Amino acid sequence: MSEAKVAVVLGVGPGLGGAIVRRFARENFAVAMMARSEDMLKPIQKEVEQFGGVALPVSADATNLNSVIDAFAQVKEKLGTPEVFIYNAGAFLMGGILELTPEQFENSWKINCLGAFLGVQQVLPAMVEHGSGTILLTGATASLRGGARFAALAVGKFGLRALAQSLAREFWPQGIHVAHIIIDGLINTPRVQAMAPEREVHTLLSTEAIAQTYWQLYLQEPTAWTLELDLRPALEKF
Amino acid sequence: MSEAKVAVVLGVGPGLGGAIVRRFARENFAVAMMARSEDMLKPIQKEVEQFGGVALPVSADATNLNSVIDAFAQVKEKLGTPEVFIYNAGAFLMGGILELTPEQFENSWKINCLGAFLGVQQVLPAMVEHGSGTILLTGATASLRGGARFAALAVGKFGLRALAQSLAREFWPQGIHVAHIIIDGLINTPRVQAMAPEREVHTLLSTEAIAQTYWQLYLQEPTAWTLELDLRPALEKF
Amino acid sequence: MSEAKVAVVLGVGPGLGGAIVRRFARENFAVAMMARSEDMLKPIQKEVEQFGGVALPVSADATNLNSVIDAFAQVKEKLGTPEVFIYNAGAFLMGGILELTPEQFENSWKINCLGAFLGVQQVLPAMVEHGSGTILLTGATASLRGGARFAALAVGKFGLRALAQSLAREFWPQGIHVAHIIIDGLINTPRVQAMAPEREVHTLLSTEAIAQTYWQLYLQEPTAWTLELDLRPALEKF
Amino acid sequence: MSEAKVAVVLGVGPGLGGAIVRRFARENFAVAMMARSEDMLKPIQKEVEQFGGVALPVSADATNLNSVIDAFAQVKEKLGTPEVFIYNAGAFLMGGILELTPEQFENSWKINCLGAFLGVQQVLPAMVEHGSGTILLTGATASLRGGARFAALAVGKFGLRALAQSLAREFWPQGIHVAHIIIDGLINTPRVQAMAPEREVHTLLSTEAIAQTYWQLYLQEPTAWTLELDLRPALEKF
Repeated sequence: MSEAKVAVVLGVGPGLGGAIVRRFARENFAVAMMARSEDMLKPIQKEVEQFGGVALPVSADATNLNSVIDAFAQVKEKLGTPEVFIYNAGAFLMGGILELTPEQFENSWKINCLGAFLGVQQVLPAMVEHGSGTILLTGATASLRGGARFAALAVGKFGLRALAQSLAREFWPQGIHVAHIIIDGLINTPRVQAMAPEREVHTLLSTEAIAQTYWQLYLQEPTAWTLELDLRPALEKF
Repeated sequence: MSEAKVAVVLGVGPGLGGAIVRRFARENFAVAMMARSEDMLKPIQKEVEQFGGVALPVSADATNLNSVIDAFAQVKEKLGTPEVFIYNAGAFLMGGILELTPEQFENSWKINCLGAFLGVQQVLPAMVEHGSGTILLTGATASLRGGARFAALAVGKFGLRALAQSLAREFWPQGIHVAHIIIDGLINTPRVQAMAPEREVHTLLSTEAIAQTYWQLYLQEPTAWTLELDLRPALEKF
Repeated sequence: MSEAKVAVVLGVGPGLGGAIVRRFARENFAVAMMARSEDMLKPIQKEVEQFGGVALPVSADATNLNSVIDAFAQVKEKLGTPEVFIYNAGAFLMGGILELTPEQFENSWKINCLGAFLGVQQVLPAMVEHGSGTILLTGATASLRGGARFAALAVGKFGLRALAQSLAREFWPQGIHVAHIIIDGLINTPRVQAMAPEREVHTLLSTEAIAQTYWQLYLQEPTAWTLELDLRPALEKF
Repeated sequence: MSEAKVAVVLGVGPGLGGAIVRRFARENFAVAMMARSEDMLKPIQKEVEQFGGVALPVSADATNLNSVIDAFAQVKEKLGTPEVFIYNAGAFLMGGILELTPEQFENSWKINCLGAFLGVQQVLPAMVEHGSGTILLTGATASLRGGARFAALAVGKFGLRALAQSLAREFWPQGIHVAHIIIDGLINTPRVQAMAPEREVHTLLSTEAIAQTYWQLYLQEPTAWTLELDLRPALEKF
């Protein structure tokens, strides 16, 4: 087992999740990266190991209790007790109210909100015992606005924001920093580049720049903690 | 089948739901009242029938798709196509994050949010066809604030508010008024009277006064619709 | 002196203010209408008198303390003590931060916010003594959003909203209903019709429909008061 | 004239303002510190000079246009063109609506909001020309909530928040980062220590911890800028 501090990022792909993994790994965290499939975690693992860091791929379905329990058990066994937990899973599903099926609506909530609840239940007992820890939750434009055809996303993201507030009010006094980051714009990921090839890079959120703010939130001292902040490109309309 | 206009209230008990049923029934609506058990609907039915109104008890589990489909099919058959739909179901579950089970957390979301989605899917197609209709969703203090030990409630109520916004932005332009009412205080119900016998009546929200605002929202003209308003007693701390 | 209940509307022109005057006058209020110039008040006075109502034109500059004091003294002398006070004054000034002069910025705040403070100071002492009263404040889209080139308006309207909240928290417990109405769209006034002749009527807020909601707020019972609601056309983008 | 980058902090005393001055001075900024009286600036100047930094005391009345113009002219002459502007002036005035005089109400707005407008007008032209710059505005609990007896403060702080939003939407696309920091709790200053001697240090916001977040906001890259964040102690009730 590593003697490094341990961070878990639930919801890792080639975009923001990977950048957060790299950021914390560079600061000598042993980082567990969780995704439904380990396939896309291998390149990140390789990259991290090249600069001497530790990034452990762990397969996990954020919407499935047993899968989440198993994944955190692996982390504990292989890396140690997490000091930082970042929930970055999410599903982006557009559709009018009459086009969505109840299953789609429910699954969207599970991946955008329930998974965070399942995750924090795994890490909080040890954090409470130690009187410290950091939990960062990734929000979106839809955390504050229920747009037409965005009900499935907004219901989940509003819910995640509610969870963040309840967590903060219950666990800040116990030394655990919970923060909610509202990412209000398109992130520069391979998927977005493919979807919107005309978008110039500086009009998209850089994953490294976002990860830097996650890192700064981790560093905040407990007399001046942030619960919520927004991030968007200078050139975003908002 | 009645020739009266039809309203459905999903989530009726001796408190606010019953008052809304009476309010719309007094205005000559044929009102379908839905609750898990029809038992507590009988006294309201009797009361409404005494003043010559129509109130049809329908058994429905708001969290169960087939039950919701069946319930609305009964309404359509017995009363006609609903012009008004009011979602007043909800569950009030307190508990710290580590005390709640995933099932409790999920069920709280289903009753506070998913049920509204299932309900609006039943009424919207006809409303869209007619180019008119009214959908009123009952919110709470927890719609805007995730308090400590209120995560289960807040996640559902934030979600319901997101749904209200998405519904409004999609369906207002089609002539359907969607509004979200934030009830920010204790309602004067038999349960609250039992729980807090020391509370004087005028410090609690009167169910009739709330129902009056629901009625006024129904009456609003489409050039000046309200999406959201709050209601609380003059003596509430807020 | 009239024995009718007295309402004061500060900020009356051919648009919303006039509609509010008519609405309350039809309910047998003696209504004092205040504007910088009495000229545009004459037609409203005539209209109200034709249906047997009372509408008293009073000249007042909302941004000038002595003018406001004088105006309310006239109301008291000629009509009696106001039970209802509606602040509907406002100035719509667009301009980038570097285009606005400090005088413009300050004057915009005075008309959009300070005037309401001066007005409520005139009516509150008697309201507190009687343990009742209603104060309605007209907000706008800019009450919630500081847009580019809207700083002058938003600073005033945000301030008015702050004032509404502080008033409500101080005076609701004393029996005085304070409410803030966010009018989120273009109102159908002669000025807007001239500015945007292509806009169809049903895409604009009807002044009568708005005034109806003001009236309903007046009627609310103290166990279920609204602090804030929004109004916009069904067809508004928001 | 210094070749260092120049920052201006308007509103400096022994509390947060001083900590911000020290923070930026340690990063090799030449910092102009503005306050009504230069007296309390001398100790900060001395402290900064002891570690080899530059902190220039400038007398300025934030509510007076000519005084603000003069002060910025001095900065330009003695230090150079500001790249960073921080508005930290404010007045904390409690009082019920009927206790405040119109002068007090107006002055509170001027110091909490107008002064920021006057300040940004001095620095923006050069920032726009260079296509870069940072403007940080200090908010408070009262930026989001108009409490009873807090009208004077809330009107100013709501206004400052509106100004921040309008500034961001106008000037972010021109490369100028505007951010608004909501300080939601008591700051550990000599004044607060005297007022509330029973408060333990870790229940108060540390000025150094706050200043660190201001510094991080300065460092943010333009693809992921924050408009607003909150800061409060872990032990704050909120």
